[in-house]
Amino acid sequence: MSDRFNQWAEAIQSDIEEALSHYLPAETSGLGQLGQLNQAMRYAVLNGGKRIRPLLVFAAGRLFDAQDSVLTPVACAVEMIHAYSLVHDDMPCMDNDVLRRGKPTTHVQFGEAMALLAGDALQAQAFAVLANAGGDVSLNVARTRILADAAGPAGMCGGQAIDLASIGTTLSYDELEQMDRLKTGAILKAAVLLGALSGGKPSDRALEALETYAQAVGLAYQVVDDILDVTEDTVDLGKTAGKDARDDKPTYVSLLGLQESRKLAGTLCQQAHDALGQFGMEAQRLHDIADLIVNRKK
Amino acid sequence: MSDRFNQWAEAIQSDIEEALSHYLPAETSGLGQLGQLNQAMRYAVLNGGKRIRPLLVFAAGRLFDAQDSVLTPVACAVEMIHAYSLVHDDMPCMDNDVLRRGKPTTHVQFGEAMALLAGDALQAQAFAVLANAGGDVSLNVARTRILADAAGPAGMCGGQAIDLASIGTTLSYDELEQMDRLKTGAILKAAVLLGALSGGKPSDRALEALETYAQAVGLAYQVVDDILDVTEDTVDLGKTAGKDARDDKPTYVSLLGLQESRKLAGTLCQQAHDALGQFGMEAQRLHDIADLIVNRKK
Repeated sequence: MSDRFNQWAEAIQSDIEEALSHYLPAETSGLGQLGQLNQAMRYAVLNGGKRIRPLLVFAAGRLFDAQDSVLTPVACAVEMIHAYSLVHDDMPCMDNDVLRRGKPTTHVQFGEAMALLAGDALQAQAFAVLANAGGDVSLNVARTRILADAAGPAGMCGGQAIDLASIGTTLSYDELEQMDRLKTGAILKAAVLLGALSGGKPSDRALEALETYAQAVGLAYQVVDDILDVTEDTVDLGKTAGKDARDDKPTYVSLLGLQESRKLAGTLCQQAHDALGQFGMEAQRLHDIADLIVNRKK
Repeated sequence: MSDRFNQWAEAIQSDIEEALSHYLPAETSGLGQLGQLNQAMRYAVLNGGKRIRPLLVFAAGRLFDAQDSVLTPVACAVEMIHAYSLVHDDMPCMDNDVLRRGKPTTHVQFGEAMALLAGDALQAQAFAVLANAGGDVSLNVARTRILADAAGPAGMCGGQAIDLASIGTTLSYDELEQMDRLKTGAILKAAVLLGALSGGKPSDRALEALETYAQAVGLAYQVVDDILDVTEDTVDLGKTAGKDARDDKPTYVSLLGLQESRKLAGTLCQQAHDALGQFGMEAQRLHDIADLIVNRKK
């Protein structure tokens, strides 16, 4: 990573943290009991994640001269969907995990019922923030459509359902890829497309290239996730390591082995770079994010 | 209820059932494991509810000459939000209920994890259907904003959080009203406003009157719910009766007694009728729905 990319990423991460805080209900708002829901929502979101989805929104947005005033709420909406999915995914009836980003998971901290509600409220809030993002009205509607599709049964929730049903089974490579395209890939792809649809209207050719890029980084993200689950420890990851094997989940590592999985991540990263040809230097940040995703250590 | 109203309501209920089926993923779509999520979503929605929210959407829509082709997806979106909230509300960590509309609840039928995912997917699908509803583009964005606000922390989820924290405590009348305004009232009000915003742009004066109407029927709905929980049995209700007392939940009946609660429902119903003055005969269906809400037996 270049110093310039790091500075750019840190500036966005810091802006997004502030904006997320602004778009979430204040801890003190509402009657007494409402405060706990607001606290749980803030706890689930404001915990210094990597904010890869917001970075993708901004990096794609700059290709179409999108304004920060539109990109910021759009990026926050995507991050809220991501955060809610982690809250629900960590619950006892799903992955039953107690550690996330180095802290107790939301249901450990606030109880299961409040975690369930906080996740539900975060999803609704994501669509509220997205609808308020401004810019061209038709693009606004198009963005809602994209995020809703990516979060729904033919996207993230569908991937989670396959994940759930796959525990203890063996998936073929195609089935594993299908699961991950939905589970993690759909929202990462949405982040890229939402960024692109926050400025001028992109050409079909540009959107196709961005979809190819997003599919490659989306899969690479999951392959690297599977690798890190095996190679890193819990302290470095900030979440429970070795969980996939414990839960008997099919992963790229269990299917291909560590060596082949690393090779696959490299190949996907190259596919992502290749897809960006038409954009030239303007796409530098998207190139950088592909490298970041493959080289990350947590 | 007049025969004419009953015929109108039955026609809408039947159309909505068909449209919901169309807007939900087919049971057979997706890979094998995805099928279960789709089945759970359909099970949670396609079970012959009273469809009061869709009726409100259509009754409000006719005041502004809204087309059925817009009202139908809008009504389905509201009903999906309502259905998802019931799925999550019935889960063991919330109300822990096993019976809904005379059938096993979704988590009893499909397991907790799948019920959690089906609820999440239904919320996303609601916003996808809403964004695809067509009509005027600015009104489309306004509708997303209204539904998202009504479903989020300052709406339904906020009300649920207060509900959760109020178990075993005594609420004042104002606190109880605040809880119910959010828990049930927010989505009922959204249904009325979404219907109104599906045709021509309503005047501020018309919107204000509809808000007053919606707040009154929203509260009346909850007051009657509390009454039925005490006076009806499980078979007639199609859900577990006597649940509020079992769970030590503050209700209008526990606070005011049965007699006073009935009087309150009547007063609220009258407020709803009074709010509609400016619309004349065009608002007949909204009048009828207020009566339906107060006179219903389940």
